[in-house]
Amino acid sequence: MTRTDNLKQAAQKQGKPTNFVIFNQTNLTYFTNFSGATALLIPEQGESILYVSGVNYEQAKADAKGVNVELLKRGENLMEKIAKQSPNKKFSVDSLPFESWRALSKAVGGEEKLESISGLIRELRSVKDAGEIKLIREACRIASIGMQTAKEIMWLGTKEKDAAAEIEYAMRKAGSDGVAFETIVASGATSAYPHGSNLERTIQDGDFVIVDIGATHKFYRSDLTRTFIASRATYHQAAIYDAVKLAHEKALEAIKPQVAASEVDRAARRVIEEAGFGECFVHNLGHGVGLEVHEAPFLSPDSKDILAIGNVVTDEPGIYVPGLGGVRIEDTVLVTKNGAEVLTAGPCVP
Amino acid sequence: MTRTDNLKQAAQKQGKPTNFVIFNQTNLTYFTNFSGATALLIPEQGESILYVSGVNYEQAKADAKGVNVELLKRGENLMEKIAKQSPNKKFSVDSLPFESWRALSKAVGGEEKLESISGLIRELRSVKDAGEIKLIREACRIASIGMQTAKEIMWLGTKEKDAAAEIEYAMRKAGSDGVAFETIVASGATSAYPHGSNLERTIQDGDFVIVDIGATHKFYRSDLTRTFIASRATYHQAAIYDAVKLAHEKALEAIKPQVAASEVDRAARRVIEEAGFGECFVHNLGHGVGLEVHEAPFLSPDSKDILAIGNVVTDEPGIYVPGLGGVRIEDTVLVTKNGAEVLTAGPCVP
Repeated sequence: MTRTDNLKQAAQKQGKPTNFVIFNQTNLTYFTNFSGATALLIPEQGESILYVSGVNYEQAKADAKGVNVELLKRGENLMEKIAKQSPNKKFSVDSLPFESWRALSKAVGGEEKLESISGLIRELRSVKDAGEIKLIREACRIASIGMQTAKEIMWLGTKEKDAAAEIEYAMRKAGSDGVAFETIVASGATSAYPHGSNLERTIQDGDFVIVDIGATHKFYRSDLTRTFIASRATYHQAAIYDAVKLAHEKALEAIKPQVAASEVDRAARRVIEEAGFGECFVHNLGHGVGLEVHEAPFLSPDSKDILAIGNVVTDEPGIYVPGLGGVRIEDTVLVTKNGAEVLTAGPCVP
Repeated sequence: MTRTDNLKQAAQKQGKPTNFVIFNQTNLTYFTNFSGATALLIPEQGESILYVSGVNYEQAKADAKGVNVELLKRGENLMEKIAKQSPNKKFSVDSLPFESWRALSKAVGGEEKLESISGLIRELRSVKDAGEIKLIREACRIASIGMQTAKEIMWLGTKEKDAAAEIEYAMRKAGSDGVAFETIVASGATSAYPHGSNLERTIQDGDFVIVDIGATHKFYRSDLTRTFIASRATYHQAAIYDAVKLAHEKALEAIKPQVAASEVDRAARRVIEEAGFGECFVHNLGHGVGLEVHEAPFLSPDSKDILAIGNVVTDEPGIYVPGLGGVRIEDTVLVTKNGAEVLTAGPCVP
C-alpha cells in the first residue's frame, strides 16, 4: 500500500471526502519525497497532480515520486486550477492559512465543499514504515557522533558557539544533510531555559551545560540531549541530575504499544515530583520525531495519543532551576512490540 | 517611535482596528525580540501582553522587551483569554491557520470582529531601521567569510557535503548564530536546479558549482550566492556566466528608492533574454531579507512592491540549463537614498 492508499482508506473510515488537496510543506514531502512543491491534488480516481512553480519544476520532474508534475505558471490561480480538476466534488484539505482557505472556498463554490483532515495525516505520519525507520536510524547515528564530539570538547573555557561549530562540523562529516533544528549549547544560568542558547558564553566551573542537537538524513530527523557538568557536581546538582536520569529510565520502561502517552509522561513526572522538583519540569516529556522534529504523538500530561508500534518519540525529562541552571536527558526511541528501542547513543555523562 | 506605535499608526491610516493579536512566530520576534512566545496582545490602551507557555516562560521574562509576560498554563484556552482582555472590541489579526482562526472567531463573538493585517506588518517589516540594518550587516559579513572559505576549498574531488561542512564551520567561527537556510552546494547537472543540493556528489572537471549560503545574527539573516567553474569554462559556460554577471550589475544599477521592484527584475531579465537564455531564468530576481530569508519586498515580473530606503533585498539572477548546470550570482543589498549598497562581499569568481 502506498501512503496515498493509506490516506484514502483512513479518510473513508472517517466519512471524509477521498479527494484531497495537500498544502503543508512537510505533508507534501511525505507523499512525494520532494520538498519544493506548492500543492498536491490526490483525486478519487486517476493520478495525482503535483503543482510546482518554475523555480523547482525541473527538479520536481526528476525527484517527485508517483505523481504527475504540473507547472504552475506565473500569475496562474492555483485554487481555480484545483477546482477545475475535480468539479463539483468535495475536498479533504490538510492545512491552510485562513486567507488561502477563503480563496479555495471561493474557487470550489463554498466552504461546505471543504473538510479539514490535518488530524488524519498527523496520525498517518506518526506511525513510521520500515523505510522511514531506516532513515531515522541514520539521523540518530549521526547525532550520536555529534554528541561524542561534544563530550570531547566540553572543557572549562570552551565558548558555547565554538562547541556548536565543532558538533555541527562532526555531524556534517558523518553525513548529516544539515541540522534538524537550531543547535543548543546552553551553559550556566542559561541552561535553566529549556530553549536557551545565547552561544556567546564561555563554560565556567560549576556549570550545567545542556547540549541538544539533531541531524537530518534524507528529510528525516533526530533529537538528542545530554547535560554535562563542568568539573565536579555539587550535592544539589547531583540530586537534580540523578532525578532526571531516573525519570528518563522510568519513562523508557513505560514506553510500550497501546500505552497512553500521558501515562509515560506520568511515569517520568512522578519521579521528578517525588524528588521535590515537580515545579521545575516545565515541559512535556516528549514528542514524535520524523520529517519534523516535533510531530505526533505527544507525550504530555494532557495528551490523548496512544502509543503504537512504529512511533518514534523522544524521552526527555528536565529540571530547570532559575538562576542556577538545568538538566535535560533526551533520547530518540522507537516503539516496538517489545517496548522502547533507543536509537540515539549519547555518551555517559557526567 | 516603537514598532508597536508604527503598527498602530499604520492600522489607523487603513481604518483597521488598533487592537491587535499577533500569532506569527517571526512577527512575535519583530515586536518583542523574543522567539518563543505563543501570542501577543497589543491593546488600544495600556501594556501589551505576551502569552508564553511554561517551557519558555522564565526566558521570556528575561528576554522579551516592552511587554507583560503572562504564563499560558496547560489546558488554558488562549483564544478565550485574549477575548476576555478586550471584550466587545474588534481585533486586527496577523496570520493564523484556518482552524485557529475559527477558534478565535468563536471566542470573540464572530468573524466580523476580526480583520486581517498580515499585509500591513509585511510592509512595516520590509523597511529596516538602523538597528536592524546593523544586525543584517553583521550577518552579511559572516556569510562573506563563509564564501571566502568556499573559494579556498573548491577543488576537483571535493565532496559537496564536505564543502558545506567547511563553509558552515567558518561561519560559526566568525560568529554566526546558525545557518540562515539550508546551505546549497550544487555541482554539475544538479546546479541546474535552483534549490538543488544532493550534497553527496564530488566536484568534477567542467562543473558549475553553485554555493548559496547565509548566516544568522541575533535573528537577522543574510543571503549570498557565487557560482564556481571547476577548472576552465567552455565557451558556452562563459556565455552563460557573463550574461548572469551583467544582469546582476544592471539590476544593481536599477535599484533606487521609489523604483518599482518589477522594473529592477526587468533590468536583469532583459539582459538574460537578449543573451538568448530568457526561458532559463526560472525564478524571481530577488526578495527582501531580514528576520526571514524570504520576505517583502519581492523583485519579480508581477510584483506590486515599490522600493524604499531601508529595504534590504537580494539581487540574484540565474540561468539554468537542464542537463548542463546553472549559474546564479547573488548579493544582499541595502536600498539607500543613493541606490544600492552591497552588504555581502563574495570573492570574484571564476
